[in-house]
Amino acid sequence: MMDYNDILKEIYEEVKPLLGKGRLADYIPALSCVDSNSLGIAIVSVDGEVCKVGDAETNFSVQSISKVYTLAMAFAEHGVGLWDYVGKEPSGNPFNSLIQLEHEQGIPRNPFINAGALVITDKVLSLYKKPKNAILDYVRKVADNEDIYFDKEVARSEKDEASRNLALAHFMQSFGNIQNDVDRLIDVYCHHCALSMNCVDLAKSFLFLANHGENPFNGDKLLSRSQAKRLNALMLTCGCYDESGDFAFRVGLPGKSGVGGGVVAIIPGELAIAVWSPELNEYGNSLVGVEALEHFTTKVDKSIF
Amino acid sequence: MMDYNDILKEIYEEVKPLLGKGRLADYIPALSCVDSNSLGIAIVSVDGEVCKVGDAETNFSVQSISKVYTLAMAFAEHGVGLWDYVGKEPSGNPFNSLIQLEHEQGIPRNPFINAGALVITDKVLSLYKKPKNAILDYVRKVADNEDIYFDKEVARSEKDEASRNLALAHFMQSFGNIQNDVDRLIDVYCHHCALSMNCVDLAKSFLFLANHGENPFNGDKLLSRSQAKRLNALMLTCGCYDESGDFAFRVGLPGKSGVGGGVVAIIPGELAIAVWSPELNEYGNSLVGVEALEHFTTKVDKSIF
Amino acid sequence: MMDYNDILKEIYEEVKPLLGKGRLADYIPALSCVDSNSLGIAIVSVDGEVCKVGDAETNFSVQSISKVYTLAMAFAEHGVGLWDYVGKEPSGNPFNSLIQLEHEQGIPRNPFINAGALVITDKVLSLYKKPKNAILDYVRKVADNEDIYFDKEVARSEKDEASRNLALAHFMQSFGNIQNDVDRLIDVYCHHCALSMNCVDLAKSFLFLANHGENPFNGDKLLSRSQAKRLNALMLTCGCYDESGDFAFRVGLPGKSGVGGGVVAIIPGELAIAVWSPELNEYGNSLVGVEALEHFTTKVDKSIF
Amino acid sequence: MMDYNDILKEIYEEVKPLLGKGRLADYIPALSCVDSNSLGIAIVSVDGEVCKVGDAETNFSVQSISKVYTLAMAFAEHGVGLWDYVGKEPSGNPFNSLIQLEHEQGIPRNPFINAGALVITDKVLSLYKKPKNAILDYVRKVADNEDIYFDKEVARSEKDEASRNLALAHFMQSFGNIQNDVDRLIDVYCHHCALSMNCVDLAKSFLFLANHGENPFNGDKLLSRSQAKRLNALMLTCGCYDESGDFAFRVGLPGKSGVGGGVVAIIPGELAIAVWSPELNEYGNSLVGVEALEHFTTKVDKSIF
Repeated sequence: MMDYNDILKEIYEEVKPLLGKGRLADYIPALSCVDSNSLGIAIVSVDGEVCKVGDAETNFSVQSISKVYTLAMAFAEHGVGLWDYVGKEPSGNPFNSLIQLEHEQGIPRNPFINAGALVITDKVLSLYKKPKNAILDYVRKVADNEDIYFDKEVARSEKDEASRNLALAHFMQSFGNIQNDVDRLIDVYCHHCALSMNCVDLAKSFLFLANHGENPFNGDKLLSRSQAKRLNALMLTCGCYDESGDFAFRVGLPGKSGVGGGVVAIIPGELAIAVWSPELNEYGNSLVGVEALEHFTTKVDKSIF
Repeated sequence: MMDYNDILKEIYEEVKPLLGKGRLADYIPALSCVDSNSLGIAIVSVDGEVCKVGDAETNFSVQSISKVYTLAMAFAEHGVGLWDYVGKEPSGNPFNSLIQLEHEQGIPRNPFINAGALVITDKVLSLYKKPKNAILDYVRKVADNEDIYFDKEVARSEKDEASRNLALAHFMQSFGNIQNDVDRLIDVYCHHCALSMNCVDLAKSFLFLANHGENPFNGDKLLSRSQAKRLNALMLTCGCYDESGDFAFRVGLPGKSGVGGGVVAIIPGELAIAVWSPELNEYGNSLVGVEALEHFTTKVDKSIF
Repeated sequence: MMDYNDILKEIYEEVKPLLGKGRLADYIPALSCVDSNSLGIAIVSVDGEVCKVGDAETNFSVQSISKVYTLAMAFAEHGVGLWDYVGKEPSGNPFNSLIQLEHEQGIPRNPFINAGALVITDKVLSLYKKPKNAILDYVRKVADNEDIYFDKEVARSEKDEASRNLALAHFMQSFGNIQNDVDRLIDVYCHHCALSMNCVDLAKSFLFLANHGENPFNGDKLLSRSQAKRLNALMLTCGCYDESGDFAFRVGLPGKSGVGGGVVAIIPGELAIAVWSPELNEYGNSLVGVEALEHFTTKVDKSIF
Repeated sequence: MMDYNDILKEIYEEVKPLLGKGRLADYIPALSCVDSNSLGIAIVSVDGEVCKVGDAETNFSVQSISKVYTLAMAFAEHGVGLWDYVGKEPSGNPFNSLIQLEHEQGIPRNPFINAGALVITDKVLSLYKKPKNAILDYVRKVADNEDIYFDKEVARSEKDEASRNLALAHFMQSFGNIQNDVDRLIDVYCHHCALSMNCVDLAKSFLFLANHGENPFNGDKLLSRSQAKRLNALMLTCGCYDESGDFAFRVGLPGKSGVGGGVVAIIPGELAIAVWSPELNEYGNSLVGVEALEHFTTKVDKSIF
């Protein structure tokens, strides 16, 4: 891999002045009390080299980014049959909207809006006796880090504020699209959203998607080449809530964001890059994180378009 | 360019059995009386080599594919200011929906749904005294073919069936997002949708988007490198109506389709490929066309993901 | 009839302090330049007695109230067949919404939302060679006043601001629910909305609905007893835009309002009462007018419930 | 009271041929296994006289009709403050729609759609330590029948199929519009919907609404005159789901229906009439019940319009 250290430093200085212009997620206490000036970036290449800058090794809550892991787990088992339960189209509505769901009879538009992610987690519950263990195990392997854990405090807070997700799950259950007990489902969902990881972990954990489905750290074939490609397409079109089109437009890479302020993107065949800056823009994506990724693809001229 | 002739022949044979499984567009007579068994494919590389198979030189109505030309014209003049009038997000609704438009105060979600394309054509009307001539001129240059014309019969039919588009235009005018006379706007819009072209023309005409904004036939710099990249991102996320996510998923290339049965995609830096087969799937995209493109990207392993 | 003069004076004094708390309609100049302190009330009993107070003989623009006349004209001719083209259910959406219309395939929810009124006016166009004359003639007869006229200035202003109604009409035409030329339809519609009348005219003109369908001034049987009853039910459930439920709740009488600040209600078998005060509340109904009617039904204890 | 026995017999014969044209509610077993040919009618005047025909003393599940009792209980305590939590406008959407609810930030359109009824039941939970007892007590008093009970089998079935209502309740809780534990709320709601009553009970139990808020059986002042009037207005505009406008149009009386096939209406100051026939029309109202009421108001010429 070329040396990205200088580029990361440049980007770090360029985007730093934007700190203070966004807003911390405030729906659970655990997210609203992080240091809003945090900023870290990490790049990991498919051959394992790591570049990093700033708070790249400080843990934070990955939140919706975890939907990629559960999707990969369910997709590997179900294959194309998975798309009977969840769509592949961008949503055109804020990420927790029930309107589309009602209109489309309980089938969420895609696996990255909350409703779709709940359907995916429901599949994971059906596949594994101990779904929380299975998810943690999966993430530790793709991130090549045995120390990754669920932040119990965050998980508990999420469960206390889960009314909207409970509504989504019961609503889909009324259409027959949720198989497991709703309370158990929400528990597992709140746990995987509460995964605590840092930028280096995150970048590493997405490498299997840049590497055609193979975990570069242990050689596990997690997804077929075609499945990895398709999951990447889904990230590009649906990975950043109602700002996905703009993300494709500005960054031009498949990526996924979370309200904890993390955002991770990949260049197929080359690398994964993760940014963390907890202040969000109006769409719920890391304000500085998206900006940093735009600077990166511009500098290295590596958009997929 | 590698020789794609054999691959095109293979694909042609593979997808031919699907003829008869879709449905011709029937909202105007001119579209419903084409030969439903037509099938043509053309590839043109950025260095000008052409491969083709089947009815690749039979003219058809490009319909919504023409929205890419007017968008390129308006984008070149307005730059980022264009996005004050039209969004960049996938729509999540059928292509002629008024619901989203009402919800978002007359700003269409993207330039490829009808409402958005009408806003773009409205900009072209404001930019040129003779907008029909300007569009025809632009298309002839990017396709390197002086013989391309508006099919007057198709344009007339479209105008007779323009109630929905008249509604969209008047509706957006009520929000202040249309500047020109609505009847004149619809006339120009119906004309550019009635452009008559063949697969070779189409593939050539999209080469400037594969070539970083530069027309390879005459060296004209039509869009900046960044603008070309962004227009490609828009095609990927929004180019195929409410099936755009699926197109990205299966084909993995920026592309644009029309209800005349044409569909064209590009591999950035390499080539453009156009398919024509007039039978449509349930989303209004060429059933065989999308299938053929999926076969192509699989065979040459050239998805952008 | 009992003598309502004292009651009207009382109400007049009670509601006067509310003047200044609403907002004039401002979408056309003709409506925004009336004297916002105007306030008139008139009651006419089915046996022809008139009580009035304030500006009860000052003309104003009746606007949507005119939809009752065209509905009565179309209902008399079409009978129950009319309900194939327009519904009878409250809309649950602001009066000019396209969302419901799209969802229900071009059939408006009821004849008092703009879309429904356009369908009704379209029927009047099909029934009469000179629809404007026919409407004027009808209104003059029910109001027993040959001097009622269309305010041409208001009609012209309305046509200049007709984008939303043009959109509605073209949209319904795309579903096959408008038979006549849209421009001619809008012309007739803008004219009947521009009827210039005063409170006494208005109250008189609604007497046939309080009188079981018979015009008390000339004995004409305009609607059957059952049709009159049904039109009254429609006014109760749908007559005041998205505030109809509240109007039924507070006033408890069938009534119809217009953005010119007029509002008229009937007590079946007894009387009609019209109020004019041009300032509107947030739902587009006369703020003082609705209040005055609530005082009236409370004082005389004459709600239908 | 005039003698309605002959009229009831006439109506009974007239509407009987319609039996078999509707469809039993099938979402819970208890409702789908009643005798679909059942038909009963009862009239009770404000001075206590009873007329009845057919299965007027066979018990059935009142379902949504029970929403009137809880509304009266909550309205009596909260007065106008109640309307901060629930609207008074017809919904314009099927009775269990989440779309409107999302659009209006968790405030249901009216107290008779499921969401609104849940808000009302939530208020009852806050008002009474033993809300199920309080409701049963209230109903027994207004119906003047100590034997009325909750059908435990029906209540249990409802709870097993409560996904949609759980979704509604959690969703409103996410907007802060539900105060009590959702599972407890659903339990109470399923119980009051499972009240087992017959036509005579039902007609008696609505007499206080025809009697200006006073229970004619024991003289209790349950609602003020104005509150009773307003509750009646609400029944007229919103009492029959998405068919309320048609009910007002055809029947012309305030009324309330339930999916158990019961429907009850009142003539203010005079009487209450209840019909039971379990087959439903497409809107979820008793097909024969609504027809019978239309015959009744036509024969006695007692519409409020």
